[in-house]
Amino acid sequence: MCRFLAYRGEPIFLDELVCAPAHSLVHQSLHATEAKTETNGDGFGIGWYGERKEPGIYREVRPAWSDENLRSLCEQVRSGLFFAHVRASTGTSTTRANCHPFSHGRYLFMHNGQIGGYARIKRKIEAMIPDELYDRRQGTTDSEAIFLVALAKGLADEPVTAMARTLKQIRGLMEEAGIEEALRFTAAFTDGENLWAYRWACDAKPPTLYFREEKGNLLVVSEPIDDKTKGWREVPKGCSLVARAGGNVAVHCLNEAMAQLAA
Amino acid sequence: MCRFLAYRGEPIFLDELVCAPAHSLVHQSLHATEAKTETNGDGFGIGWYGERKEPGIYREVRPAWSDENLRSLCEQVRSGLFFAHVRASTGTSTTRANCHPFSHGRYLFMHNGQIGGYARIKRKIEAMIPDELYDRRQGTTDSEAIFLVALAKGLADEPVTAMARTLKQIRGLMEEAGIEEALRFTAAFTDGENLWAYRWACDAKPPTLYFREEKGNLLVVSEPIDDKTKGWREVPKGCSLVARAGGNVAVHCLNEAMAQLAA
Amino acid sequence: MCRFLAYRGEPIFLDELVCAPAHSLVHQSLHATEAKTETNGDGFGIGWYGERKEPGIYREVRPAWSDENLRSLCEQVRSGLFFAHVRASTGTSTTRANCHPFSHGRYLFMHNGQIGGYARIKRKIEAMIPDELYDRRQGTTDSEAIFLVALAKGLADEPVTAMARTLKQIRGLMEEAGIEEALRFTAAFTDGENLWAYRWACDAKPPTLYFREEKGNLLVVSEPIDDKTKGWREVPKGCSLVARAGGNVAVHCLNEAMAQLAA
Amino acid sequence: MCRFLAYRGEPIFLDELVCAPAHSLVHQSLHATEAKTETNGDGFGIGWYGERKEPGIYREVRPAWSDENLRSLCEQVRSGLFFAHVRASTGTSTTRANCHPFSHGRYLFMHNGQIGGYARIKRKIEAMIPDELYDRRQGTTDSEAIFLVALAKGLADEPVTAMARTLKQIRGLMEEAGIEEALRFTAAFTDGENLWAYRWACDAKPPTLYFREEKGNLLVVSEPIDDKTKGWREVPKGCSLVARAGGNVAVHCLNEAMAQLAA
Repeated sequence: MCRFLAYRGEPIFLDELVCAPAHSLVHQSLHATEAKTETNGDGFGIGWYGERKEPGIYREVRPAWSDENLRSLCEQVRSGLFFAHVRASTGTSTTRANCHPFSHGRYLFMHNGQIGGYARIKRKIEAMIPDELYDRRQGTTDSEAIFLVALAKGLADEPVTAMARTLKQIRGLMEEAGIEEALRFTAAFTDGENLWAYRWACDAKPPTLYFREEKGNLLVVSEPIDDKTKGWREVPKGCSLVARAGGNVAVHCLNEAMAQLAA
Repeated sequence: MCRFLAYRGEPIFLDELVCAPAHSLVHQSLHATEAKTETNGDGFGIGWYGERKEPGIYREVRPAWSDENLRSLCEQVRSGLFFAHVRASTGTSTTRANCHPFSHGRYLFMHNGQIGGYARIKRKIEAMIPDELYDRRQGTTDSEAIFLVALAKGLADEPVTAMARTLKQIRGLMEEAGIEEALRFTAAFTDGENLWAYRWACDAKPPTLYFREEKGNLLVVSEPIDDKTKGWREVPKGCSLVARAGGNVAVHCLNEAMAQLAA
Repeated sequence: MCRFLAYRGEPIFLDELVCAPAHSLVHQSLHATEAKTETNGDGFGIGWYGERKEPGIYREVRPAWSDENLRSLCEQVRSGLFFAHVRASTGTSTTRANCHPFSHGRYLFMHNGQIGGYARIKRKIEAMIPDELYDRRQGTTDSEAIFLVALAKGLADEPVTAMARTLKQIRGLMEEAGIEEALRFTAAFTDGENLWAYRWACDAKPPTLYFREEKGNLLVVSEPIDDKTKGWREVPKGCSLVARAGGNVAVHCLNEAMAQLAA
Repeated sequence: MCRFLAYRGEPIFLDELVCAPAHSLVHQSLHATEAKTETNGDGFGIGWYGERKEPGIYREVRPAWSDENLRSLCEQVRSGLFFAHVRASTGTSTTRANCHPFSHGRYLFMHNGQIGGYARIKRKIEAMIPDELYDRRQGTTDSEAIFLVALAKGLADEPVTAMARTLKQIRGLMEEAGIEEALRFTAAFTDGENLWAYRWACDAKPPTLYFREEKGNLLVVSEPIDDKTKGWREVPKGCSLVARAGGNVAVHCLNEAMAQLAA
């Protein structure tokens, strides 16, 4: 179980959210409150959009709490759209390539959750990734695999439907393999302009996901980074949040999208 | 506040104590029980005596819990005298050179505690280190400085008295500088044959220190690594434990040694 | 192109070969002589057999020349069978999991060379790895994939024939894919008692491989670690070296083994 | 011997100079041409001025050539004043705190060279650093010590004279100690607006230093990053380059400044 944060709004220095708040993401790397694992010390990463179409990425294997580079970068970089993630490994090794966010072209993706019994169906999931994307796989996590599968299923064009397809198919593979552990998936995705977030699980226990809108600035987090009473709303279980540039935040039903696929 | 473990006895594989027990040192890197800081993820180190007079050292900046090399080494290395330490930094940076144990020739030293207001008297403490030892300083911690000062004051020949001298003088510098934070010091030292441990503070709060003897095998730890009822004894506050090769474990009064110096 | 060293003989401290000689492997990490790349600074690893059936492994992403841990370990560890490897990446990232040697149970494998056009047939090569072994894949290199494929093809029982099968099949995939880059393969493999080494390429340019026997001690290296005149013999191109415990070193024709497979 | 690059001019993406040219600094980390050591793989660092008064810093212990983070950062960060440095250690350990550039408030400093016999006069040099600056010392290099000494001697106000004082005094300590190795010093310093560079040695062998001006953009380098014929000028031995914001580049005689101090 990891912790993450996504921001879209007027450009701000990253440290305002990543380092400064009482319960900032850097703080959560050492003391998360709502996570199954309190410590998220198995690497971290930030991804941000600046002057280029493709995002910048800084990922490191050290804990976020002691990384001087992270602190300096977050003080310098100002961005209107960025992701930050602190990792608690569910088994794969602590390498930069296994740290979130993952990027592909102008897309960013990060994940908190787990494909239960991943080792038993790893190859089948990887087989869902077409060759040209498979060659881009840098690490060994289930999270990166989900991202590449979802890209193949149209994530760039239909972020909700494509993710519904992906989750449905992975869940199918798990059932075929007789896996009893759950598929739990809380994630965020962006194309550099629009932002999507997801909260879903095959059981009733998807990891927490909150958001807050203030003056057109949107913040999506695993858990509140300051006083919980300050306008945070929970993304309902089985839902996805859609925040198109210039539009309002909408919550869609991911379960329904999956049901329609079934039809 | 860090966590550590020292063993002297019949040669055993390091993993028996460092990795395997329910509350092993690797476990404590993520979940310490009696420490001020639960997480000890700012690097770690092991030092062991094998066939050579000088000990082997493996120190890394990553958390102990995710280090594959540590696990493999501890499975392979069998030793009759070794130290292991997981670090929670009190301010200095996370580098290998700042990780414990520190070595000098055939000596090993590791520490849990802090010189209050260290930054204000750092130079004065370093001035207590003679040139030939100062050149051996690799890192920037107060712990390494204490070790080098104590070596200069005769640690190799009179481990209890020399440490009493060292603590007394550092405490004096703190008082001169009007420092109100405490000097707290729990530590272990060895010459490759004999083992000493220390538990002292200028206030009534030295970090915890326990030991257990079984069939001539001695284990000294920051906190018990298994069931607390299993024969663990606390090293009393203000005391030092002396375990000479072939002799029984004795507890000496460090406070008294310091008082005698005063006379 | 990497550099490596394998030793089997009376137990010696690793530093005698890895660190001490004028042209030691640590020296070669900075200044290799016969390699296409002079610098081999993309990580390193050692694997050695001690008291356990399974080997110990220490792999790091830093250059070997500046790693204090490597130096200390090599001073302490005495072994009668060990591998050491310094890496020059051919494209995959610098992670511990991508460093050699690779281990599986009691087996060790290390490689110098490259599957030309690997990215284009990576998935097909991985498909040759059966599920139970695929789950053990930790990194993303072609070298680890070759090892796992060869294990599946009987490497443990028929080290020469299994490797011939592996190379032949990979070469076939390359031809099918119309890859023009070469397959070049110099490698070493051991089960903890016996030692095999291989030197093969689909063109006339397999990486160099030398060996020296002295009083029953065998040393196999990418390039001589001391004066080239001192008894070094080249492993002929297209051959494999077989050094069974208690027996003499024999050189087998790998090309012939491959030809027989074709029949 | 290290390699470095300093730029002041219209804001550009760092990768234009750090990563892209045929003989870029990243290239020089693996293959320097005019350096005593061809490989500069003992860590690296960049420092740049953005929207804040204080510069951003990214320093890492891995070789620059394989660092994905460096590549991504240099693609994203656009700056009108930045430093980049690849390190070849002259003895101190490979830690982030020992990598250049060093920062203090809004100042940046980087160095290529060495205080001969540093270990023998390290403490005396450190004694030249006043307490408030000594507390800011993070690493153990001679380079960081020179920077802090020079700051104490007025580097911020009189960059040429203060450095002359510093070099003169260090040279004096070396002579007193009977050190025969040379003091060689090529360096760059900035306050975020103006840029100074230095090339001096007590013998006739200061490390190389070049600069090029084009349309008001100034580039100062250890060695040319592209075709040597393209307008590069050498900073003469014993000189310092002064590039005040809005003014022309001037070359001052450092030797003369030192001689005047003597008077």
